[in-house]
Amino acid sequence: MPQNPQIHLVSRPNGEPTADNFKLVTLDTPALQDKQVLVRHAFLSLDPYMRGRMNDTKSYTVPQPLNSVMIGGTVGEVVESRHPKFAAGDKVVGMGGWQTYSVVDADTPGMLRKVDTTHVPISHFLGAVGMPGVTAWHGLVRIIEAKAGQTLTVSAASGAVGSAFGALAKARGCRVVGIAGHFENVGGMVLDAVMLRMNHFGSIAVCGMIAGYNGEPIPLANPSLILVNRMKVQGFIVSEHPDDWPLALQELGALVGSGKFRPRETVAPGLASAPEAFFGLLKGKNFGKQVVQI
Amino acid sequence: MPQNPQIHLVSRPNGEPTADNFKLVTLDTPALQDKQVLVRHAFLSLDPYMRGRMNDTKSYTVPQPLNSVMIGGTVGEVVESRHPKFAAGDKVVGMGGWQTYSVVDADTPGMLRKVDTTHVPISHFLGAVGMPGVTAWHGLVRIIEAKAGQTLTVSAASGAVGSAFGALAKARGCRVVGIAGHFENVGGMVLDAVMLRMNHFGSIAVCGMIAGYNGEPIPLANPSLILVNRMKVQGFIVSEHPDDWPLALQELGALVGSGKFRPRETVAPGLASAPEAFFGLLKGKNFGKQVVQI
Repeated sequence: MPQNPQIHLVSRPNGEPTADNFKLVTLDTPALQDKQVLVRHAFLSLDPYMRGRMNDTKSYTVPQPLNSVMIGGTVGEVVESRHPKFAAGDKVVGMGGWQTYSVVDADTPGMLRKVDTTHVPISHFLGAVGMPGVTAWHGLVRIIEAKAGQTLTVSAASGAVGSAFGALAKARGCRVVGIAGHFENVGGMVLDAVMLRMNHFGSIAVCGMIAGYNGEPIPLANPSLILVNRMKVQGFIVSEHPDDWPLALQELGALVGSGKFRPRETVAPGLASAPEAFFGLLKGKNFGKQVVQI
Repeated sequence: MPQNPQIHLVSRPNGEPTADNFKLVTLDTPALQDKQVLVRHAFLSLDPYMRGRMNDTKSYTVPQPLNSVMIGGTVGEVVESRHPKFAAGDKVVGMGGWQTYSVVDADTPGMLRKVDTTHVPISHFLGAVGMPGVTAWHGLVRIIEAKAGQTLTVSAASGAVGSAFGALAKARGCRVVGIAGHFENVGGMVLDAVMLRMNHFGSIAVCGMIAGYNGEPIPLANPSLILVNRMKVQGFIVSEHPDDWPLALQELGALVGSGKFRPRETVAPGLASAPEAFFGLLKGKNFGKQVVQI
């Protein structure tokens, strides 16, 4: 079996994460058991939620354990399979983590999904046609319930979620105002400023608040606007809405496959570059989806 | 026609309102035109929303004009009628304002409504079986969508809205935790504290934020909890949901009429006492619904 370079979380950050929090180690890939599949990763996804997992505090999921492979979405190719539904050469998306290979229990529902790369480059299944795209879809369709002619605002508009949000909203005949720049703009002062300019009965879908991910306080200046403008502010986690995924992925795949939505990407070269690329993501240095080529 | 003592707003408060903002004047009651009704008020309702109307800033309604009768809900008895649907002696609820009599264009929908005082004392149509009760009903039923067995928290629990909320929630088999005391507790630190203790997927119905009605900043300390706990925070104004009123008033009337809900009241004696009673309301000095006996 091949050698498997991988990145572990070895300590928890106090504020901004640093390179010391991570360690590159290389282990043997174990022999496959029955129903298991060996995947060679082509790209690793970097996402803001990973910052939350590095903490040991209450959040919507369990913390990332220390001294084990960092969690992360991956796309790649099946190298060897002992599961009847997968064969060598299959292109797949899964949660392989920050490593070169993963051994997947393919019988567990949702662990591994085959993707068709005929019209969609494989890395986009981590972005526009993946979790970030479905996040945008759920916020737009389920929380905001956008209708043609409405004006919508999205912060971090050049990121993976924001750009998919813009494409999906335009496809529905909405006007979209994107907020972007090389500084942090999700939550904090940008949210305060947007709230001051919202129409009555407006809705805010909250899928992230990177502005506070390093522990900075991010108070909301004027919560009374929620009353005065009869607003709805709702948070959600896309993984808790599995029923939306097929519908959202179908629409996003069609938008990308047809060329109507051309997602941008920032590609970091090689697994060892993942920590630095992740720090950049938290500071908004990426344009479009941040991935790591493995 | 009788003399009509009334209270005008003559200046706008800068922070806390004071007696100087009001003036008691006495005018003649004009002769009735066709379709008009003359009502002698028995009780005037005092409500926190009135503080917002005293300002000249953007809110969900137009400001109270200066040098005219302060807006307010009233219950009373028809003295004289030139409208076929009303007769002298009818008990009615309306928006008569801070005055002893009002002349009502009874053809305008929603201006005047007859009430049955057989089982419900007339003043309760300003509280438990009136606007505050319907406010509680809408928050509980439409925003929170309460179900039996759930635990709910209500701030200003001894007030008109809070006590109705408790009665309605108990009737649905919910556990209700009320927050009350002689200090301000709607919005501000109490909201922050409640948010820290909420369950995942909890909802907050925002029908008022008295804590900031005098212009004090009331930031929300931890808006990121909306994401982490996948919460919904929604503001509403009960007057914008006319379809709910008949259903809510029927349920509230039955609860009060049957004795299952015995609303408390604080009654201020005489129209001239309205300003001081209103200042007390904003500081939580009332227990139950604050009314003024006219």
